[in-house]
Amino acid sequence: MSTHQKQRITIIGSGNWGSAIARVCAANARKFSDTFEPEVRMWVYEEQIDGQNLTDIINQKHENVKYLPGIHLGDNVKAIPDVKEAAKDTNILVFVLPHQFVYGVCETLCDVIPKENCRAISLIKGLDYRDENLLIFSEEIEKILGIHCAALSGANIASEVAEEQFGEATIACRESSDGDLFLKLFHTDYFDITVIGDWRGLQVCGALKNVVALGAGISEGLKYGNNTRAAVIRRGLVEMRKFGKSFFGGVHTETFFESCGVADLITSCSGGRNKKVAAAFVQSDKSIEEIEKEMLNGQKLQGTTTSQEVFNFLKARDMLDEFPLLTTVYRIIYEKEPAESIALCLRTHKLD
Amino acid sequence: MSTHQKQRITIIGSGNWGSAIARVCAANARKFSDTFEPEVRMWVYEEQIDGQNLTDIINQKHENVKYLPGIHLGDNVKAIPDVKEAAKDTNILVFVLPHQFVYGVCETLCDVIPKENCRAISLIKGLDYRDENLLIFSEEIEKILGIHCAALSGANIASEVAEEQFGEATIACRESSDGDLFLKLFHTDYFDITVIGDWRGLQVCGALKNVVALGAGISEGLKYGNNTRAAVIRRGLVEMRKFGKSFFGGVHTETFFESCGVADLITSCSGGRNKKVAAAFVQSDKSIEEIEKEMLNGQKLQGTTTSQEVFNFLKARDMLDEFPLLTTVYRIIYEKEPAESIALCLRTHKLD
Repeated sequence: MSTHQKQRITIIGSGNWGSAIARVCAANARKFSDTFEPEVRMWVYEEQIDGQNLTDIINQKHENVKYLPGIHLGDNVKAIPDVKEAAKDTNILVFVLPHQFVYGVCETLCDVIPKENCRAISLIKGLDYRDENLLIFSEEIEKILGIHCAALSGANIASEVAEEQFGEATIACRESSDGDLFLKLFHTDYFDITVIGDWRGLQVCGALKNVVALGAGISEGLKYGNNTRAAVIRRGLVEMRKFGKSFFGGVHTETFFESCGVADLITSCSGGRNKKVAAAFVQSDKSIEEIEKEMLNGQKLQGTTTSQEVFNFLKARDMLDEFPLLTTVYRIIYEKEPAESIALCLRTHKLD
Repeated sequence: MSTHQKQRITIIGSGNWGSAIARVCAANARKFSDTFEPEVRMWVYEEQIDGQNLTDIINQKHENVKYLPGIHLGDNVKAIPDVKEAAKDTNILVFVLPHQFVYGVCETLCDVIPKENCRAISLIKGLDYRDENLLIFSEEIEKILGIHCAALSGANIASEVAEEQFGEATIACRESSDGDLFLKLFHTDYFDITVIGDWRGLQVCGALKNVVALGAGISEGLKYGNNTRAAVIRRGLVEMRKFGKSFFGGVHTETFFESCGVADLITSCSGGRNKKVAAAFVQSDKSIEEIEKEMLNGQKLQGTTTSQEVFNFLKARDMLDEFPLLTTVYRIIYEKEPAESIALCLRTHKLD
């Protein structure tokens, strides 16, 4: 990384989390004006709000009225409807968009971004399932764009970060010089960043915690108590680690002690939407898709998709039995396995 | 351990948890009648209930009407008011009593129990603070009685175990033959036991989790959100591990992935009394002792005592700064440090 040139920042995405994170970056771009260009460009998929362009509203009011209402993003956030224009000559690309759009956007950007002195960081949750394989998004971005890509994940509810409530997050990257730069860009007094090297473990956690959260929701829907809930979360953590270590090189136990690991898991199992929908699913006769529609207003659950992908991945390897919790969540949701199996699957020894 | 002789079981203690665990042991003593004597003796500190001895009520109704009402303990649980009689010629001593009584009881038992073919297991929570040192109860029992002592801990709310809701627990012991025996005595289809070797780590977790739970309560009392709560729990887990590894030999990272580690911590930070009292403390002007009295009906919080002991222990070693969460919980409760420090103390880097 060259330190002679100020770093231009582009946020790719402008949803709830994208807007909250743009606000963090905008404050740090101002604070470290020797390192960063003050203007933070944010690609916004154009929408009409009461006859006005969302980008125009954001650039006038400095507020994303649709996805993060009531929060001042900073005067130096510039909304741009054209992704190529937003990313042109940038030095730092922050990917924070739904994972189904990643490949399309990356291919669009391929010819626009500089190959020198440009790096990316992925805030995308989930893994990409292709040909019975699970791919890590930061590595896919690296392949397509030909630049380094780090990843950020943690126990972060977007609105709380936007309100400057204290929280932590983890950044994982290959190069320590990239780590220093991203620390400067994301760390604040209320958003405490730890930099680690295990980008695969971080992203495995970000995907699998949603499946465990479905398990916690199933347990809650059955009115099971604290002991069962704690067992589901713990065994989820253990299976997440086993999954990471079994199928991805370089995954470390320490990663699971970071915010991206145990902390994010606890948050997702306490109040996230995966937990809520799974609890409602258990208490009704409807399919998960129907419950999803009713409760989420057209949005899709990430945990259910990941659950299917993980199941197919394990099945292709004949390893379903080695991940009883992850497997049982899938079977309860998609194969009419009784919900009670969420506890029964955790039994280990038989002493009869 | 001799396998020729059936093992006699004695429960030392008959509170809420002691009664629930006596019930588990009684069922397994029946189930494995080749290994265990069917009668499970339970030492009960004699009390009068409506003019009747509590021991008589238990032996007639097979129910501890005072401490675990509504639960059938098993016909083969025998309540005995004399601790020497309860422990005479026993092979397995299950210690499950408040820690302030441990030494007195052990000294009473010293001459009664056989030195051969007798072993103990401690379900006592907390560590013993003496001369600026923290001692492990299972090791203290070993020293006084001259027999091996294992330990059991986990994410276990007594009433849920008594109702046969699924949960997990961890047993730690030096000898694998003891582990096999205790597994047989405690494991059931709904109470899933894992045996490990790290008895110190297990007991450090059981003590320190209560201090972290106070921290979670402080955060809740301040109306802080999920991100802060997750950060407090995570940093608590990290400090528990650091504490264990720094001051006690043989403490392993794996222990913190067991039920006695992360699972028990999550349960204590979600609904335990330490959390509740700390939340109320933050929202009032009263001292912690006053709140304790109002909320707990004369019972004492374990977390506050442990917090004082841990603070004094660290202070004597000039290591307060290395455990910011544990230290800050103490200072908020006893030194009028502003409650907001519970989040501020977690900040790491300063980038100014």
